[in-house]
Amino acid sequence: MSEVVNKAALAKETAGVLASLSTADKNEALRIMAEALIREAPAIIAANAEDLERGRLSGTPESMLDRLALDVSRITGIAEGLQQIAGLPDPIGDRLETFERPNGLYIEKIRVPLGVIGIIYEARPNVTVDAAGLCLKTGNAVVLRGGSSALSSNRKIIEVLHRALGETAIPSQALQLIEDPNRSSVDEMLKLNGLLDVIIPRGGSALIQNVVLNATVPVIETGAGICHTYLDAGADPEMALSISLNAKAQRPSVCNSMETLLVHRDYAAEHLLPLAEAFRKIPVELRGCPETTALIPWALPASREDFATEYNDYILNIKIVGGLDEALQHIAEFSTKHSECIVTRDVGNAERFLQEVDAAAVYHNASTRFTDGFEFGFGAEIGISTQKLHARGPMGLPALTSSKYKIHGSGQIRG
Amino acid sequence: MSEVVNKAALAKETAGVLASLSTADKNEALRIMAEALIREAPAIIAANAEDLERGRLSGTPESMLDRLALDVSRITGIAEGLQQIAGLPDPIGDRLETFERPNGLYIEKIRVPLGVIGIIYEARPNVTVDAAGLCLKTGNAVVLRGGSSALSSNRKIIEVLHRALGETAIPSQALQLIEDPNRSSVDEMLKLNGLLDVIIPRGGSALIQNVVLNATVPVIETGAGICHTYLDAGADPEMALSISLNAKAQRPSVCNSMETLLVHRDYAAEHLLPLAEAFRKIPVELRGCPETTALIPWALPASREDFATEYNDYILNIKIVGGLDEALQHIAEFSTKHSECIVTRDVGNAERFLQEVDAAAVYHNASTRFTDGFEFGFGAEIGISTQKLHARGPMGLPALTSSKYKIHGSGQIRG
Repeated sequence: MSEVVNKAALAKETAGVLASLSTADKNEALRIMAEALIREAPAIIAANAEDLERGRLSGTPESMLDRLALDVSRITGIAEGLQQIAGLPDPIGDRLETFERPNGLYIEKIRVPLGVIGIIYEARPNVTVDAAGLCLKTGNAVVLRGGSSALSSNRKIIEVLHRALGETAIPSQALQLIEDPNRSSVDEMLKLNGLLDVIIPRGGSALIQNVVLNATVPVIETGAGICHTYLDAGADPEMALSISLNAKAQRPSVCNSMETLLVHRDYAAEHLLPLAEAFRKIPVELRGCPETTALIPWALPASREDFATEYNDYILNIKIVGGLDEALQHIAEFSTKHSECIVTRDVGNAERFLQEVDAAAVYHNASTRFTDGFEFGFGAEIGISTQKLHARGPMGLPALTSSKYKIHGSGQIRG
Repeated sequence: MSEVVNKAALAKETAGVLASLSTADKNEALRIMAEALIREAPAIIAANAEDLERGRLSGTPESMLDRLALDVSRITGIAEGLQQIAGLPDPIGDRLETFERPNGLYIEKIRVPLGVIGIIYEARPNVTVDAAGLCLKTGNAVVLRGGSSALSSNRKIIEVLHRALGETAIPSQALQLIEDPNRSSVDEMLKLNGLLDVIIPRGGSALIQNVVLNATVPVIETGAGICHTYLDAGADPEMALSISLNAKAQRPSVCNSMETLLVHRDYAAEHLLPLAEAFRKIPVELRGCPETTALIPWALPASREDFATEYNDYILNIKIVGGLDEALQHIAEFSTKHSECIVTRDVGNAERFLQEVDAAAVYHNASTRFTDGFEFGFGAEIGISTQKLHARGPMGLPALTSSKYKIHGSGQIRG
């Protein structure tokens, strides 16, 4: 039996016990896990140093090494994340609906765990802990498959968490790490129907596309964000400036940052140049349609491919449009349906935008950067769903649950 | 461009219009569709006669021909189905949540259509109309791929519905039928990410497995039901008899009928023989574990494969178990997580069964035959989901929807 099948089967064995745990038991386990991480931080940091060393030797870029690196302060932050998850309301067991039928059947719809969740992710070792915490809090077993570049860190973290779980009501078997660094272990997870109930990919678009296109297990697609901000003719210039800068540059590496600014022709005539100047100061590289490059001498020409690219960087496309219709058309063509914004004082245009744009989150007069579990008040999130089934947008704990109908009868049969 | 891509793209073009239609417009369209079907029944029956003739020539079994056959009464029933869908509450536009954040952002979670739904199904031409009605009522465009044995009927039905939609606010383009009878057209639909938002298979387990194992488009898995009824030591004998007979024999061909009866050893000693006699009278063929065949001389031995088979027929497996634990174990091993029942007077055992059995619908003292949209009071259903993501159990109209967040700001940016 392969490592993947073996560990997924071990995880599945615990599903029944996990589904029946009390909230208090689960929260207590999360707190014990958090304490163990802090207590064993030196060992984790030592294991992390091995990953960093291997990364340096193989020429991994500094920015990637930074994502991988752990120190006491980051481990404390990760442990605090578990404490926060312990503080969130537990959705399991919630009665979503109750109804009585004319024949006397009493039907309850109850929130239950999904079962066994597979998480496939890249280098950041904090995902190992976050995902474990969110899944266990919702009574799910979890099979983690992190990037091989973080394998030493992940192994040590799981060793620490397994030992911690030994003191709790959660069976340590509920938490599994796939250590096989070969891609074949990912491929195997993707086809593990019957052992995994869902797979959630977390990472770059190549990782996500591989999962979406090859999994036979149900998938919750997360992530990719080609987000637009449309500055309408009647936009307040100060607000337009501050929202545009924030959406692009407050943290360009994340999925809810802006990649393309659409500007109404009338607005552009007066206000685009000062806006471009502000971007130049950061600096953000500008790529524009022909009208844009005519107005902004330092803007490079944007290709069709640029408009279809998630830069996650200090680069911005600008396109001047004739009005809302053209903006909506551009968004429909290039959006990944993540987060889209209109800045306008025209209530009618705002309403049309919010109604017609097909995306997880549509904004009027606010930065797309707010599409986030914490910003929405949900707390820690397993990801931001960009698909339409099951969950859409920031996924709080309820996104990690399913439901079942409990039907209470007194001998009813169907006529 | 292939027929599949072409028609899916045409359907997708209408998604924006469909999402914005009023409930009144959609209901009016459904009523006009229903009237058209009744008015044009003779033409539909003539087209159906072609399918039946082809089926007879190719040696299709009588029971299959019966499923395919249309007459005035069946067409009237199908049209009434559309009227009923028109009478159901429209979930689109419902505010699922509203909340205000400390920074003043006002967030609404609104129900929206899924977009374009692909339905892959077999011979029954009534599915063509039901699926069209349910999808259009929820503002979804729909791409239908029915079985080739019903192609003439389906073509005529779609022609009638297209003409009817011409008089309504729903663009007729929103309803597409794939006519290519080759399997390649199904394969093409399964990979149509970007044009189809979800695929729902309706049919036998081979069709469903093909979709689940090959689709890259998200799927809602429906259907297969290996359902169990467990008669506990303390079951009321009269109730146990009537529930068992109903679950097996009231309509054996459907997914919520019982395939295996689990019987507590103490209960079996006194009550299994009279129960077996009742099944013999119907007649239902019995296949049992060694203890069962020792008690019931006419029962055949049941193999492991029998316990893993959805008969959809007058055949029943019987297994005698030592108690609730063994029953739960058998169910965990063989259940397709559709509908499971315990008959008992022991409240503790009933609660444990309802809690621990992992299935869409778990029953105490009622027949599994109630797992059905109409019986639950949801009205017409697109299917019964046996997966845990998105929807579980009978899927009413809300299962054909997604949501989006509308965020109303006044210039908020992220700090």
